[in-house]
Amino acid sequence: MSVLDWIGADWGTSHLRVWGLAGDRVIHEAASDQGMGKLTRADYEGALLALVGEWLPEGQGTPVIACGMLGSRQGWVEAPYRAVPCGPLAGPLAVAPVRDQRLSVHVVPGLQQHSPAADVIRGEETQVAGFLTLSPGWDGVICLPGTHSKWVHLSAGEVVSFQTFLTGELFHLLAEHSVLRHSVTGWDEAGFRVGLAHGLERPEWLLSRLFTLRAEGLLDGLGPAIARARLSGLLIGAELAAAKSYWLGQRVAVIGAAPLARHYADALAHLSVPVSVHDASTMTLAGLRAARAFLQPSEASCVR
Amino acid sequence: MSVLDWIGADWGTSHLRVWGLAGDRVIHEAASDQGMGKLTRADYEGALLALVGEWLPEGQGTPVIACGMLGSRQGWVEAPYRAVPCGPLAGPLAVAPVRDQRLSVHVVPGLQQHSPAADVIRGEETQVAGFLTLSPGWDGVICLPGTHSKWVHLSAGEVVSFQTFLTGELFHLLAEHSVLRHSVTGWDEAGFRVGLAHGLERPEWLLSRLFTLRAEGLLDGLGPAIARARLSGLLIGAELAAAKSYWLGQRVAVIGAAPLARHYADALAHLSVPVSVHDASTMTLAGLRAARAFLQPSEASCVR
Repeated sequence: MSVLDWIGADWGTSHLRVWGLAGDRVIHEAASDQGMGKLTRADYEGALLALVGEWLPEGQGTPVIACGMLGSRQGWVEAPYRAVPCGPLAGPLAVAPVRDQRLSVHVVPGLQQHSPAADVIRGEETQVAGFLTLSPGWDGVICLPGTHSKWVHLSAGEVVSFQTFLTGELFHLLAEHSVLRHSVTGWDEAGFRVGLAHGLERPEWLLSRLFTLRAEGLLDGLGPAIARARLSGLLIGAELAAAKSYWLGQRVAVIGAAPLARHYADALAHLSVPVSVHDASTMTLAGLRAARAFLQPSEASCVR
Repeated sequence: MSVLDWIGADWGTSHLRVWGLAGDRVIHEAASDQGMGKLTRADYEGALLALVGEWLPEGQGTPVIACGMLGSRQGWVEAPYRAVPCGPLAGPLAVAPVRDQRLSVHVVPGLQQHSPAADVIRGEETQVAGFLTLSPGWDGVICLPGTHSKWVHLSAGEVVSFQTFLTGELFHLLAEHSVLRHSVTGWDEAGFRVGLAHGLERPEWLLSRLFTLRAEGLLDGLGPAIARARLSGLLIGAELAAAKSYWLGQRVAVIGAAPLARHYADALAHLSVPVSVHDASTMTLAGLRAARAFLQPSEASCVR
């Protein structure tokens, strides 16, 4: 029977996902909705134990390597940002305070940038690191779509610069809480392409195009599936237009979950950008494996 | 003692405001939060009577002239949109069903546009009409900032075209419900001007500039008053950039409430646009007075 060596954790604002590993092999997997947004500092250990408690052997501290918002100032333990340009991953990892001696929790630092614009990354640096371990020597741009989309320029193994877009969060706010909320449900591929073209062509018209969706619903009977897909296309198109300095003349690796990653990749391919798509969880896990190298040798495996 | 001749009502999504008039003179005034968003069709009459019931003389139908969302399909009675180009106001007004014989409720139609983009107005047409009665023969552009900002091109007494921007609603969603919500409170005039300049200069960068506010809060200690004012400036700047075809080479009348109307006017003046500011309630009331002319003569005054 396989013996648990370490645990990887992806701990974001809205979710917690954990893997139990024997060497590089996943032998356990679990997830919950106990993201940072729901937790005070005192809640983290319990939220983690609720998922991994049964996996843990008795004895001293099985290492947990974690990335994401648990490392923010309001999280479990602050893992201070590292300044770019730098490799996506480096030690020391921050050590979270735990009561249960079966645990030893280490948190990956995020990245910060001061110019050309202030920006921060927390969690995605681990996906970028994972991508680099699977594609050594890769130069180019990584696009990580999501609540806050990130574009990362990689060169010679270092993050040179990055930029965050509020695209996913804005889509959610508009679709769930705005005047559009009653008229956007479902998905229509052709509608997405129309919205994308509008967003790319005239990103500065976003504020009025949003209302056009409402007016077309009232006057022209625009269907909710087309409206929702056009809304998504408008926002992603505006993001792509603004991120042009990232993708123009570059190859782009999109790291994300379907179907969103596919939407970005299709849009980039349509702009004649060489593009590949990579699963976010696979990259996270590869990055957490790479982060394990930054533990002290004595912590790198479970002492039994 | 003055005798009530008619009642004017401004009935939007989130508010109801009423004036009781003797001729052109306001003798009563009241308001409530019973906007369309809180009401089913059966609730309207009660919500109105709660404010004006005590003003009403016995006898037949005191005319109520109302504008705003109560005239939408989901409102009290649908007052179908009139298509531009057309004057901002014309009959027939829609007649709402009432049980209380002391009332006779008439609703101003909104405006619709099919090209260059689908768009609708409901409520602001009355303010535009009011403005025209106070400034006869005025040609130019009217800007009505708010939850949904409207830009209206007026020529020879007709609305030629108009365009709506989701600016105010987006500000509210971002300030109250987004990742920015904990870091934006208060107001800082210099911050507004910085945001405005950014929005005007690079409206297409909006999605990333929004996150920059968050990152500057984390990395540079950007204060919440500056952050909130910059957020407002960014959005208004992006709106002004996109509305350039409206204001360039035109004079602009801004109709709205302080301080928002003043922010728009200052920004336009800074762009060398001849601009004047007009109180929204005054324009609404003037428009409702003008709408009274479209009642049938027998309805135009209270029969006692």
